[in-house]
Amino acid sequence: MRQLTGSITITAPAMGLHDITPDVTAWLDGSGFGEGLLTLFIRHTSASLLIQENAAPAARRDLQRFFARLAPEREDYEHDDEGPDDMPAHLRAALTQVQLSVPLIGGELQLGTWQGIYLFEHRRRPSPRTIALHLIGE
Amino acid sequence: MRQLTGSITITAPAMGLHDITPDVTAWLDGSGFGEGLLTLFIRHTSASLLIQENAAPAARRDLQRFFARLAPEREDYEHDDEGPDDMPAHLRAALTQVQLSVPLIGGELQLGTWQGIYLFEHRRRPSPRTIALHLIGE
Amino acid sequence: MRQLTGSITITAPAMGLHDITPDVTAWLDGSGFGEGLLTLFIRHTSASLLIQENAAPAARRDLQRFFARLAPEREDYEHDDEGPDDMPAHLRAALTQVQLSVPLIGGELQLGTWQGIYLFEHRRRPSPRTIALHLIGE
Repeated sequence: MRQLTGSITITAPAMGLHDITPDVTAWLDGSGFGEGLLTLFIRHTSASLLIQENAAPAARRDLQRFFARLAPEREDYEHDDEGPDDMPAHLRAALTQVQLSVPLIGGELQLGTWQGIYLFEHRRRPSPRTIALHLIGE
Repeated sequence: MRQLTGSITITAPAMGLHDITPDVTAWLDGSGFGEGLLTLFIRHTSASLLIQENAAPAARRDLQRFFARLAPEREDYEHDDEGPDDMPAHLRAALTQVQLSVPLIGGELQLGTWQGIYLFEHRRRPSPRTIALHLIGE
Repeated sequence: MRQLTGSITITAPAMGLHDITPDVTAWLDGSGFGEGLLTLFIRHTSASLLIQENAAPAARRDLQRFFARLAPEREDYEHDDEGPDDMPAHLRAALTQVQLSVPLIGGELQLGTWQGIYLFEHRRRPSPRTIALHLIGE
């Protein structure tokens, strides 16, 4: 049994869902592990992680609109020093994931056919986001 | 230290919360592990995992009604090729869990007294759902 | 490779977000691990875990108000035997986390600069909450 740690840093091209599955599998492919557990942990509070539908771009647009409605930019947040998109960013992050663990079985990350791993950028002006990685297994 | 991987496939009897704790503990009981970490990962984007109250069926009905109100079937989703319950299914999945890790200590999965592990089926017509399992420990 | 299990029990001073990062790092500091994965699992269904902004108290107050609006106390929950704050507590727990895994790299828990680990107490009268801990690594 052994473990491997590291990180990837990604700047999303825009606010919203950005597919990072290729970045994650590239890191994993160099590891030589066949069975194990991969954990991703995003080190930020205004961006998050989400596993979502990877086939239909329209589904991702609906998802972004849903979160924009659910945790909208409003006039009346108490915390507004960092701009009107900051507090909604924290709320959308709280409603999704800071961490995801995905089993690796028979050399394959166990994502379903229609699942992709997404960086969910919640700020209007994206900045570099670091995701810590931990892999344990053989 | 060793690990065990596998999967269980379950078809919920209906839309909503379906207790899979017995299925999970049956898989675990055959493993011979006493201390470790069990990870469940659902390989779908229109069903999810949730740990919830296992005592009061009324609490589960309230929870289902809450998610039905929060992410309702609507006329105006852009993604509607797979029926009116498809996009809300993705939204309800995004708001709950794709993955859960539960410590195993002294031979006992560390669920609280009132906690059960639920498959949360979001489609009106349930289909078989596969949950990948990973166990590491001793 | 080795593992360590345990638990911490915390009573929040009031409903809302309570920073438990010091309790978690105190447990971790005694472990002697430098690389690994720490998992926290809360054994309750009316309190939850959340990683959030640790700098601005106003952000946490906005977050509490947001969840109070999103899953409000209402007259019409079917499950109301345990008081008006019980069903909203389950809903707010379902929308946040029961479990968090955080990588430990180079002796440092990989929380970002602005991230803290919070116990999110959803009942008006806080009670002791037990969080099971699992650490694996070296």
